[in-house]
Amino acid sequence: MGGDFGPQVVIPGAAKALERHPDIRFALYGLEDQCVPLLDKYPKLKANSTFHASELAIAMDEKPSQALRRGRGKASMWQAIEAINKGEADVVVSAGNTGALMAMSVFCLRMMQGIQRPAIAAIWPTLKGESIVLDVGATIGADAQQLMDFALMGGAMARALFEVERPTLGLLNVGVEEIKGQEQVKEAGRLLREAGLDSIDYFGFVEGDDIGRGTVDVVVTEGFSGNIALKAAEGTARQIAEYLRAAMSRTLLAKIGYILAKGAFDRLREKMDPRKVNGGVFLGLNGVVIKSHGGTDAEGFAAAIDVGYDMVRNGLKAKIENDLQKYHASRPSEGAASGMADEV
Amino acid sequence: MGGDFGPQVVIPGAAKALERHPDIRFALYGLEDQCVPLLDKYPKLKANSTFHASELAIAMDEKPSQALRRGRGKASMWQAIEAINKGEADVVVSAGNTGALMAMSVFCLRMMQGIQRPAIAAIWPTLKGESIVLDVGATIGADAQQLMDFALMGGAMARALFEVERPTLGLLNVGVEEIKGQEQVKEAGRLLREAGLDSIDYFGFVEGDDIGRGTVDVVVTEGFSGNIALKAAEGTARQIAEYLRAAMSRTLLAKIGYILAKGAFDRLREKMDPRKVNGGVFLGLNGVVIKSHGGTDAEGFAAAIDVGYDMVRNGLKAKIENDLQKYHASRPSEGAASGMADEV
Repeated sequence: MGGDFGPQVVIPGAAKALERHPDIRFALYGLEDQCVPLLDKYPKLKANSTFHASELAIAMDEKPSQALRRGRGKASMWQAIEAINKGEADVVVSAGNTGALMAMSVFCLRMMQGIQRPAIAAIWPTLKGESIVLDVGATIGADAQQLMDFALMGGAMARALFEVERPTLGLLNVGVEEIKGQEQVKEAGRLLREAGLDSIDYFGFVEGDDIGRGTVDVVVTEGFSGNIALKAAEGTARQIAEYLRAAMSRTLLAKIGYILAKGAFDRLREKMDPRKVNGGVFLGLNGVVIKSHGGTDAEGFAAAIDVGYDMVRNGLKAKIENDLQKYHASRPSEGAASGMADEV
Repeated sequence: MGGDFGPQVVIPGAAKALERHPDIRFALYGLEDQCVPLLDKYPKLKANSTFHASELAIAMDEKPSQALRRGRGKASMWQAIEAINKGEADVVVSAGNTGALMAMSVFCLRMMQGIQRPAIAAIWPTLKGESIVLDVGATIGADAQQLMDFALMGGAMARALFEVERPTLGLLNVGVEEIKGQEQVKEAGRLLREAGLDSIDYFGFVEGDDIGRGTVDVVVTEGFSGNIALKAAEGTARQIAEYLRAAMSRTLLAKIGYILAKGAFDRLREKMDPRKVNGGVFLGLNGVVIKSHGGTDAEGFAAAIDVGYDMVRNGLKAKIENDLQKYHASRPSEGAASGMADEV
């Protein structure tokens, strides 16, 4: 029901994803009068899905606390998440209210053992392909141990998504020599170096412009700066697209040039298309939840489903659990080490 | 002497700025053997400048503490900053080591009364023109009162640079409802609302993508997230320029289209040209210091000089002092108010 267009985008999006992955089975949760007539138009999707009528839908501007109270047991969002607990779904994909989706996911699925805080991981297009950036806004601030947890989860996600054995990973920091970065980032760097993980190739600190350059497969930061980096980059991409549009329609020659080079512009648009990498992954929960942009169209929603499909097919949850277990098993004295991180 | 090219960029850059502003008088500090032969090639600049031979130059990779020790009294950077104290210069422009430049500026010029921390303000191109973003990396972390100080200084700079009476100002924050932002950002918002300043039109919170949109004239944040936002945006602009280059050279039609639309591309390149808005302004010191990008060319260095020229001509320092004084005078009990901010 979520996002700017509700089932108008979700149902055709699911139909598109089904064409690419005929082995998906959908469990759809929503208001009957809005969903069922639409679903009838997609017979193939209808044949591969079960529809569950919900009493209510969470609004995009509802506060998470209110959504939790009002939606408990009844909202389509709640029921979809609960389907994971019931063993009826492997992954939840929603274009709904991010805060409510996170709050309900934490409440219903609970945090994974050994993880204190959830993270939202974004898939970021780079000059080399794609990278994972987390946390882009689940929580604000993170101590060294929480950054270490983000690193373990991001590394596991990179192995699930990119199918690399030992993804490279960097901690986001500032480059000005004098200030040398936050204490907790430096301490996380020390933890990562000392851990000597098999699952991650720790690169060191990276700066904001290293993200788009594709310097590493995984960029770890806390949610405030991660969210600001993501939005600053999105804003810049929109800004340049706007400049380009204005420049290409200014003169007749530019317009003719634009027509001749249309194939090239289409490629560029595709490269810059935010729908192609739509899907923030909630990490740290006992279940996989994918958040689609609220403003996306059917193509974009299908891309978010694709991400969820890959995460399940490539065993994201098992990979994270496995990496966490190995990491904690390798630390002789858990208490002392995390105490040290807190002291900093 | 600083930057990737030293006097090779600084001297022709100064010559360019002099053409635009014939009333500038330059005091040049550097190593004699590198500067004097070059200066001879620019007779007009030579006639409008004094050259001061320095014993040494600060290296780009020198640590600030080392630069302070080694450069004291002798380095070209030190001597240029000292020229402000001696009343021999109104503004310092350098392409050198940022950390060293900041450390020496704080040491030699000292902090302005009532300001605890310096800030680096960047001039950011937006869809509406330009905005000021601070702090982009002078220090890490800022409490509510320090963010308030940044707001006062950024507002004064906006009045000096854009010649608006009451610039709009936003606090950079994250939009996810659930987490609602850092406590110190919320507290700074409260301070700004309650201050009811004549000099600033406080807009409220803005997000990362509001910067490029030009939502407000001044965006205030602490140095860690500010630096990351700036670099993420720079990285994205480079990334898209790279995509565009690749797309336009792929097919013959695209190449022909590119030639026809060349005027439009030139306009776009100019819009995206980082040299046009080169010049970070150090705020909060008893003197104006401008940091040029180290990798810039003569055109870019001239742009940094232009920024310095505007700041002096439009009385930046007096504007900041005036605004600070008014703000502090309007607060009945300074101690209580700042104690409140610290408690949060």
